[in-house]
Amino acid sequence: MISDKMKDLVKNNSVIREMFEEGKKLQKLYGKENVFDFSLGNPSVPAPKKVKEAIIKILENEDPCFLHGYMSNSGFEDVREKIAESINRKFGTNFSAKNLIMTVGAASGLNIVLKSIINPGDEVINFAPYFSEYNNYIKNYDGIVTVVSANLETFEPNLEEFKNKINSKTKAVIINTPNNPTGVIYSEELIKKLVKILEEKSSQIGHPIYLISDEPYRELVYDGAIVPYVTKYYKNTFVVYSYSKSLSLPGERIGYVIVPDELDDSNEMIEAITIANRIIGCVNAPSLIQRVIPYCLDIQIDLKEYDTNRKLLYKILTECGFECIKPQGAFYLFVKSPIPDEKEFCKTAKKYHLLFVPCSSFACPGYVRIAYCVPHTMIQRSEDAFRKLAKEYFY
Amino acid sequence: MISDKMKDLVKNNSVIREMFEEGKKLQKLYGKENVFDFSLGNPSVPAPKKVKEAIIKILENEDPCFLHGYMSNSGFEDVREKIAESINRKFGTNFSAKNLIMTVGAASGLNIVLKSIINPGDEVINFAPYFSEYNNYIKNYDGIVTVVSANLETFEPNLEEFKNKINSKTKAVIINTPNNPTGVIYSEELIKKLVKILEEKSSQIGHPIYLISDEPYRELVYDGAIVPYVTKYYKNTFVVYSYSKSLSLPGERIGYVIVPDELDDSNEMIEAITIANRIIGCVNAPSLIQRVIPYCLDIQIDLKEYDTNRKLLYKILTECGFECIKPQGAFYLFVKSPIPDEKEFCKTAKKYHLLFVPCSSFACPGYVRIAYCVPHTMIQRSEDAFRKLAKEYFY
Repeated sequence: MISDKMKDLVKNNSVIREMFEEGKKLQKLYGKENVFDFSLGNPSVPAPKKVKEAIIKILENEDPCFLHGYMSNSGFEDVREKIAESINRKFGTNFSAKNLIMTVGAASGLNIVLKSIINPGDEVINFAPYFSEYNNYIKNYDGIVTVVSANLETFEPNLEEFKNKINSKTKAVIINTPNNPTGVIYSEELIKKLVKILEEKSSQIGHPIYLISDEPYRELVYDGAIVPYVTKYYKNTFVVYSYSKSLSLPGERIGYVIVPDELDDSNEMIEAITIANRIIGCVNAPSLIQRVIPYCLDIQIDLKEYDTNRKLLYKILTECGFECIKPQGAFYLFVKSPIPDEKEFCKTAKKYHLLFVPCSSFACPGYVRIAYCVPHTMIQRSEDAFRKLAKEYFY
Repeated sequence: MISDKMKDLVKNNSVIREMFEEGKKLQKLYGKENVFDFSLGNPSVPAPKKVKEAIIKILENEDPCFLHGYMSNSGFEDVREKIAESINRKFGTNFSAKNLIMTVGAASGLNIVLKSIINPGDEVINFAPYFSEYNNYIKNYDGIVTVVSANLETFEPNLEEFKNKINSKTKAVIINTPNNPTGVIYSEELIKKLVKILEEKSSQIGHPIYLISDEPYRELVYDGAIVPYVTKYYKNTFVVYSYSKSLSLPGERIGYVIVPDELDDSNEMIEAITIANRIIGCVNAPSLIQRVIPYCLDIQIDLKEYDTNRKLLYKILTECGFECIKPQGAFYLFVKSPIPDEKEFCKTAKKYHLLFVPCSSFACPGYVRIAYCVPHTMIQRSEDAFRKLAKEYFY
């Protein structure tokens, strides 16, 4: 009696979540200290102290009926205005409150954008490797998932293949930079090339191809890397943002969607997305945490711990003989499996209590994702396990 | 370029929200004190002090990575266990953590239930008058909305018509008691009759017809009225609950879905609903406010204010000559329009700065909804306006 769409999903439940359960099982068997779970993207750096201070201050000062009550489906107007001003200061954009819709995290942001643009049969392009939940979001609205295969040298989009896969059914393309799972950041040069294709093809097929920029990792960058602000390059861009990583609040479900004035039919689109926010069941982003954001506009979590983790784990892995690109952002290492079947590799790793995510689920088989948003001491303790694992393949 | 489904919605944007904007406009023109906005179901009684105390206590004591981090998509297990125990104590049920999925309010609860059971073309029955958002939720999954017309005497379901409208495509029926917009509570006797029909028809058509009980107003009852706990009468029941009204936290988006063990394929259904919670974009109910709930299990807002409002407004309305049933629950009065076209009546009311919701949008034309979740003083101040409005029709 379960709907057909959900039946398939129940059958193929998310690999990442399965790993999560598996990790808990191993911890029970061998003790928490002896299991090295690198499978989940759950932040290990705590939220800035300012978050707690802001919550308490707000509770002390604001009327509870207002604070915990309904507001416009797009969120508190003063909160949106302050976020818009902060984005404008940082990126030289020109947004105001009306261009922002506060959302229940980036996941619901993506859903309300897709619901507002997809008709059944429309195609949405993804660049492998990519977060497999996009598939579910697209299918929620009977869209078709189109995959552009990974460029295994740079892990930047394969633009020639992209160009060839665009057709009259193409409605949007999703980018995610800094990228989950590779940590790669798309350069300004690449964005410009991508935009050129989008503009040419949009005019060729006679309707805009939207660029959906999923940016939960925008602030998680290392070595001074720069993440271009995509609305400045292409007018038909939706920005989907979340405070999950920049403020370490993934459980609180707080983010926003930006619809620039320059986007075609912008006002109507803003209304559609606001209604979608209501009718998919979110109604509005959680109210108290919305009001916390203006207190935290110019702060973010301490990146040092992730950066230290990144350097140490990269060093361990490459010294062991594993192949991986040094990530510029996010908190993942994208590692080539020493054998073609990376699921088999993950099974072997489990012998040493090492948990990774096999990247078949990111449309990039032969690779694994190793999340380094973990306590630094766990990485230190895991070194021996990595060496033993390497021995199975390299020595 | 907006999707067809959303295009229609943009065109016919929610009447309630329009009223909300209209109210703000009138307030600007005539001053807040001189506008009597009875259109919105936004609680006017503040959240219990315990909510604030609990938030501060939790912030002081819990690790921020845990508190604000991801958890299982169904919510924190300890929170669900405590809620289950509390429901069991109150209603003699037998739930445990696994039967509860924490949700982003009741709206997302309804969505994840409907997503998990509806195939395109399946029918869902609603008893008029009912909250029109149900239509959007059902259509999100390409379900067909079937309406059983209102019983204008009792505003309880019209069971004969219900029986006749069930067919092999019928997947579910939604009930909402205490009811928005009538304030009516379905008696045990009525629930038993309804269940008898569901059982007979389910076995006739060869598959279960689910009963979806939307219960955000469960605790808002007056004069000692009793709201039967529906899972005790019918095994294929989903309970959809929200703390929006009982704790005055509608903006925080916190509620749950209950899937009893007795429901057919219960375990698979729990998994489907949990996955649906993830993929519609909620991922999980907001984490901090989840952890607040165990501190507030045995408390609720002070009902006296609503009750006092109910009595005064009922007195004013009936003294003026308006016809309405005395509500047993929720915070609405369901008033018969003195003229058949209730939208015209609402326009006339606006002349006196009185704002109601015309109930065509609740599938019950000829009636208006007057929400009394407003400051008591506003009701007192509005008396004169009601008398003037009555004069237009009765004297």
